[in-house]
Amino acid sequence: MKLHGYFRSSAAWRVRIALALKGLDYDQVFVHLRHGDQRAPTYLKVNPQGLVPALEVEDGAVLTQSLAICEYLDEVYPQSPLLPGTALARARIRAFAYAIACEIHPLQNLRVLNRLKALGQDEAGVRAWAQETIATGFDACEALLDGQAGPFCFGTEVTLADIFLVPQMANARRFGVELRWPRLTEIEAACLRHPAFEATRPERQPDAE
Amino acid sequence: MKLHGYFRSSAAWRVRIALALKGLDYDQVFVHLRHGDQRAPTYLKVNPQGLVPALEVEDGAVLTQSLAICEYLDEVYPQSPLLPGTALARARIRAFAYAIACEIHPLQNLRVLNRLKALGQDEAGVRAWAQETIATGFDACEALLDGQAGPFCFGTEVTLADIFLVPQMANARRFGVELRWPRLTEIEAACLRHPAFEATRPERQPDAE
Repeated sequence: MKLHGYFRSSAAWRVRIALALKGLDYDQVFVHLRHGDQRAPTYLKVNPQGLVPALEVEDGAVLTQSLAICEYLDEVYPQSPLLPGTALARARIRAFAYAIACEIHPLQNLRVLNRLKALGQDEAGVRAWAQETIATGFDACEALLDGQAGPFCFGTEVTLADIFLVPQMANARRFGVELRWPRLTEIEAACLRHPAFEATRPERQPDAE
Repeated sequence: MKLHGYFRSSAAWRVRIALALKGLDYDQVFVHLRHGDQRAPTYLKVNPQGLVPALEVEDGAVLTQSLAICEYLDEVYPQSPLLPGTALARARIRAFAYAIACEIHPLQNLRVLNRLKALGQDEAGVRAWAQETIATGFDACEALLDGQAGPFCFGTEVTLADIFLVPQMANARRFGVELRWPRLTEIEAACLRHPAFEATRPERQPDAE
């Protein structure tokens, strides 16, 4: 398999964690988002959306969207299930992941922040937008975990929820968000002691700057 | 089952379509988003995120996030599968749905448009933001369907992709987007002839204004 990604993309980090959890080997292709590699014709042939990550699988097919890639990996490689339990348990795990993937991440990615700058927002305004987005979203995430046991989001095993939480926590730190969510912070610490998270951290990647 | 929704919420419409496709009965509870019902303490007990839809299932459990609800319904009620085919086929269907759920919808919902107004954007500026978001996203969606046969997104049966496309097309019309995507427009027309889409249209709901 071949993963097209960028060390600092939180969506690419999600896929690196899923691949590591399942013990899968893959090659990496580095798409430098700040240099605009994602808009190069060669990359648009891989993913017409111009987004990372994209995963080339055995037969040359290209998968896009980190959520779809994680679901695919979970169906094809059932070891270390990302969505364990009953349909209801799986729905709760997915809802948590989507609360990040659909409510937080799209509103604080580079593309949107650049659009806000084009509308006349200065650095402080853009930063405040990202901080407010993340804080509101994490309030909801903390509430979604009410009554759930640790050390991970949903019990004693890593799930899709943790895979989405940890890269978003890294973004929160990068934007200087005050981390006022004790449960989320504990989960992040537990995850970062796990080798699948540790080894895939952005700063450990070959393209890290 | 009890669906908490709002006639004009495209996320609630997705769930209405999924329930209709599977032939499931449910009661509706109307949460008036423009009156702020979603921030009322009674609703926040149902969904702490303050978003619609939320689905109460048989044992009183509450499911949130339209994507998680659709996946749950597909697992528990396998008739009229929303994700037919191989793992690769399912990944393509999911990637299309996520291209709408993660890349378009979050950037043009009421909450975000209100934030843009608070930053000083006038009506025209907010409308232009929504239009640009939808147009860029639909360019990618049309490309993702390259090589796929109709009349629906992925062949002769309705899938999760169609459930996400049609409500987003309605939003596009509402924002006055020029619909320059022939394939998406044809799929929308085919879907709106299907009873699961027809009967669940926003204007057919009891809370429509």
